[in-house]
Amino acid sequence: MSLNVLLIGAGAIGVYFSGRLAGAGAAVTVAARSDYDAVKNNGYHVTSIAGDFDWRPEIVRDAAEYGRSADLIVIALKALPEVDMVELVRPAVGKNTAFLLIQNGLDVEVPLHEAFPDNELYSAIAFIGVSRLAPGVVDHKGGGELTVGLYGSSAVPDKLRGIAELFSAAKVKCSLTDDTERMRWGKLLWNVPFNPLSVLAGGMTTSEMMADKHVELLAFKLMKEVQLTAHACGVDLPEAQLEHNMEYTRNFSPYKTSMLLDFENRRPLEVEAILGSVVRRAKMHNVDTPCIDCCYVLLGARDRMNRKK
Amino acid sequence: MSLNVLLIGAGAIGVYFSGRLAGAGAAVTVAARSDYDAVKNNGYHVTSIAGDFDWRPEIVRDAAEYGRSADLIVIALKALPEVDMVELVRPAVGKNTAFLLIQNGLDVEVPLHEAFPDNELYSAIAFIGVSRLAPGVVDHKGGGELTVGLYGSSAVPDKLRGIAELFSAAKVKCSLTDDTERMRWGKLLWNVPFNPLSVLAGGMTTSEMMADKHVELLAFKLMKEVQLTAHACGVDLPEAQLEHNMEYTRNFSPYKTSMLLDFENRRPLEVEAILGSVVRRAKMHNVDTPCIDCCYVLLGARDRMNRKK
Repeated sequence: MSLNVLLIGAGAIGVYFSGRLAGAGAAVTVAARSDYDAVKNNGYHVTSIAGDFDWRPEIVRDAAEYGRSADLIVIALKALPEVDMVELVRPAVGKNTAFLLIQNGLDVEVPLHEAFPDNELYSAIAFIGVSRLAPGVVDHKGGGELTVGLYGSSAVPDKLRGIAELFSAAKVKCSLTDDTERMRWGKLLWNVPFNPLSVLAGGMTTSEMMADKHVELLAFKLMKEVQLTAHACGVDLPEAQLEHNMEYTRNFSPYKTSMLLDFENRRPLEVEAILGSVVRRAKMHNVDTPCIDCCYVLLGARDRMNRKK
Repeated sequence: MSLNVLLIGAGAIGVYFSGRLAGAGAAVTVAARSDYDAVKNNGYHVTSIAGDFDWRPEIVRDAAEYGRSADLIVIALKALPEVDMVELVRPAVGKNTAFLLIQNGLDVEVPLHEAFPDNELYSAIAFIGVSRLAPGVVDHKGGGELTVGLYGSSAVPDKLRGIAELFSAAKVKCSLTDDTERMRWGKLLWNVPFNPLSVLAGGMTTSEMMADKHVELLAFKLMKEVQLTAHACGVDLPEAQLEHNMEYTRNFSPYKTSMLLDFENRRPLEVEAILGSVVRRAKMHNVDTPCIDCCYVLLGARDRMNRKK
């Protein structure tokens, strides 16, 4: 299968996964903004625990410059309210264009689905530790998996199966799910406690959070509130999954969450995608989530103050 | 009445109120540590909305150097678990020594009362905006009142009445209370929301907190949890007092709380006195205080991380 792919959101995650697709034979074009010149001249250099690679994709400034309809648009933008995803992709959307949306949060698919209801929308969550060290330079240090499913359906279309096979051929473990809602809640179960606490506790790594009995307990309380809200939304997150998350974080080599890195670099935080998502669902179903509410207010305030400085 | 006074805790609050006592005729000695040399040489210079004054008290390094028993020991130390107040005052305590303890929190009187059960202990709360600008230089910009009562009793001993009169003679509004427990809860009703939030929201002044609808609402929630806990402890804080606190803070000229100033200067925060006090009482009485618990954990973590840096 020769697949024409356009990447929108050329951060570390987007570049890593699209680069892997290219390695398996897809024809990938990257829409780059701030890194345009560097990447146009030198391409990407990716160091990875799954094998380093250099990559010189076609580079455009945006979907309009791409000038045709893609078979697949990979969207790996940070989930921020101010980003109009629909307008960013529109020029490259045709009848047969599918979307692979790699993003945190709940209901992040809605704008895209409403704008292009007849296009297949693959909802994905990445489990990966990857960062952009410099323009065109990406470092992949942990994880590297994708979970993906068709939004709003338990079916697995042929195209999606083909994409999963391409990923597998490129050493990316890609699991298919028939329940993207459950998948998203599962990711939130980790993100809701550890992303905000890494910032709110004053810049703690994962192991510093787990070494502080009070912070560790608060992390667990936040997970319980996610579990409660998910339950009200019809998704049961088993107790073992909570325990697993705590164990996993305790034993992982210490690292700064992506939210902490964003904060330290004064970039906007995914407050709405990660906490706002759950706060709104909890309100909708009358679930009491006092700790999440509290962290939501504090993180929103710190994000605003941080960007002002 | 000629009153021999020793001040322990020569921060801005201690210097201001002791200086006023001296102005009314008390013989005040100041135990100074870091500012010893500056104050020994030049005394204090206090600028104040109630009238500036220069003051050259006797200066000692500690109560041992004072070498006699005081009629009154004014204690204006920050309320920190690592400070052993009893040992700091012991050398100056005689049979007729009374204590004036100006400090935030609940149960802060306990160690002193247990060590010196037969000495009169006056429990006090200050309402004042005052700061130390440099060694020996103090600036008083707002408030300036004391509320004080005999710890563990509704009686007003003669000595306490005499001290209140000295304060009044020195332009300090000093209110006597027959219920120091209620007085302490009343102060916490302001301190619990606004001190921690000023730090946790990323360095907000009072008016920035009140201008942010989410932070303002969280402040009110924290007050409600204080009210609930106080109620369980037998102290009713009327709804009007909560509304008054919000109004007062909304209309006050913008300022940084003392906790935020401590944080910015990497000094230890009164986490235990202000939040720990309430957390422990709530636990004792099975009161649910999720927002206070959450802020308690986060503030403790930020305090530790802040002092490490």
